[in-house]
Amino acid sequence: MSVNRRVVLASRPEGEASAENFRLESASIPELGDGDMLVKHRYLSIDPYMRGRMNASKSYAVPQELGNVMVGATAGEVVASKNPNFKVGVSVTGMGGWQEYSVVSPADASMLRVVDTSVAPLSDYLSCLGMPGVTAWIGLHRICGIKAGETVVISAASGAVGSVAGILAREAGCKTVGIAGGPDKCAYVRDVLGFDACFDYKAVAGSADLAAALASECPSGIDAYFENVGGWITDGVMSAMNPFSRMAVCGMISGYDGAMPSMRSPGLILTNRMLVQGFIVGEKREDWPVAMAALNDLYRRGVLHTRTSVSAGLETAPSALLGLLKGKNFGKQLVELG
Amino acid sequence: MSVNRRVVLASRPEGEASAENFRLESASIPELGDGDMLVKHRYLSIDPYMRGRMNASKSYAVPQELGNVMVGATAGEVVASKNPNFKVGVSVTGMGGWQEYSVVSPADASMLRVVDTSVAPLSDYLSCLGMPGVTAWIGLHRICGIKAGETVVISAASGAVGSVAGILAREAGCKTVGIAGGPDKCAYVRDVLGFDACFDYKAVAGSADLAAALASECPSGIDAYFENVGGWITDGVMSAMNPFSRMAVCGMISGYDGAMPSMRSPGLILTNRMLVQGFIVGEKREDWPVAMAALNDLYRRGVLHTRTSVSAGLETAPSALLGLLKGKNFGKQLVELG
Repeated sequence: MSVNRRVVLASRPEGEASAENFRLESASIPELGDGDMLVKHRYLSIDPYMRGRMNASKSYAVPQELGNVMVGATAGEVVASKNPNFKVGVSVTGMGGWQEYSVVSPADASMLRVVDTSVAPLSDYLSCLGMPGVTAWIGLHRICGIKAGETVVISAASGAVGSVAGILAREAGCKTVGIAGGPDKCAYVRDVLGFDACFDYKAVAGSADLAAALASECPSGIDAYFENVGGWITDGVMSAMNPFSRMAVCGMISGYDGAMPSMRSPGLILTNRMLVQGFIVGEKREDWPVAMAALNDLYRRGVLHTRTSVSAGLETAPSALLGLLKGKNFGKQLVELG
Repeated sequence: MSVNRRVVLASRPEGEASAENFRLESASIPELGDGDMLVKHRYLSIDPYMRGRMNASKSYAVPQELGNVMVGATAGEVVASKNPNFKVGVSVTGMGGWQEYSVVSPADASMLRVVDTSVAPLSDYLSCLGMPGVTAWIGLHRICGIKAGETVVISAASGAVGSVAGILAREAGCKTVGIAGGPDKCAYVRDVLGFDACFDYKAVAGSADLAAALASECPSGIDAYFENVGGWITDGVMSAMNPFSRMAVCGMISGYDGAMPSMRSPGLILTNRMLVQGFIVGEKREDWPVAMAALNDLYRRGVLHTRTSVSAGLETAPSALLGLLKGKNFGKQLVELG
């Protein structure tokens, strides 16, 4: 196998991203140098942050360069190795990008994580046992500092991060309320993930109605909000938040594919002495070991699980991302390669 | 002297507050009970938070009740005492409200602070050596966690809190940039308070121009923002803030006398992994001793000082507050009683 198919960023979106912004290419796989290894990807992780990388403007990461392979987490298998630390046949996760194979140099080998597929299926290492799971743990425990008995609201509750956040909040002894889009997702959030309640934002007229519904469901108010969406949903949640409440800003997907939303009442940060903090999981390396230990423990006990939306074939990666930005995924979005 | 004149809240504002919302009354001073003392007020402190108390809606404090004396800090002298811990003649600060005298019960005596007018004039204990000074210290050191070499921006820089914040930031080794209204205030901020620069928001077209001016003045970006105003000024400052920057939300005076402003780009909290936190100085009692020690030290060294705007006579308290809400004060606003 000497051909590697890959998806590159062909152009930057103006407004909404579209399939034309991507290009499918073929390239030959280079010879391995000393210490290199070749990883064959089985899954690509599709995540909201990827939309930000498509812009030229500064975000928390440098923009994706035009003509380069789209960045992203991957899970696969070492199929050739000149690195004595990685044997052929081991399963690994890494940042291989939207392509069938990646060559990993010794300098980049520290980004690889060897995973045990006898413990969990490979795909789980890209979701509840990987970056999304750690993101949920850090947001709740390091940013929000949740305590038993508190009330926690989580938006995008059926998504990769939100679903783990809900399980973690419930396990921490919190009343856990989700917000998701549509009756199927809400039923899953309540019945499968075990949230105490879930509101369908598509069935709510606006922020005032959402605030009223939340206030009714949460008689003690909201102590912590795991923010994944932004915009009017956030405005509604903030209206029902308590003095000394905390908001972990993990994402604002409502603004990724167009104009970023405003915040209607930042005065609440003052009057409620709130803490609002943005974070990126990759910058919290010191928290990963304890987070992963907690996630692994819950997984072994059968408490932690993730639903996945899997699309088949590298060429479906662009449409998977475009769908994710519109909430068409249901659970963790993956692309499975042949 | 058995008559006490006082200003009560006569009605709640609809929209902007006006003189009609207040009423001047006379009442007799009650006999002192066992442990009571009588304080004659010499200064009333006029502060932005008082506008929020005039509303019926929930803020961080219970609303001021209609017909009751307006709340507020006071400085004065004990003129009669049945409390063995407070001798006649001592100077004290307290929360005596908008009136000429207050009777302080033993239960409320812990709110009084005996102050030494041989160290500083009485009025300074309501400004740089009192609540505004401690507010500035806590916002910078406990919320923003400023470090030497960082760049700090302070809005309402010529005000009671902002002016102390500027002195503290400069003393901490920070590049210190103010925002104030009009050339006189800006000159004072630069030349007397020693800020490195000050921008006149009345001479700036909007948030984009302010952001550009700040970016030019602050080539290393903004690490901490002491927020006193809200609205488009905040939008402009946020645009120039750095990754991992902090915003201490102390006030949002632009919204106190009307609709609270929105925040245009909360997405910056995410992309810059910002911390935004509201606080109220009265809830940070544990920080007062170290803050007061630092302020007293700077005062003794002649570094700490405050400009005051003093209006004469109890009956001027309403107009002093209304003027403060429009930025007509220049420095700490006080009312001096006869």
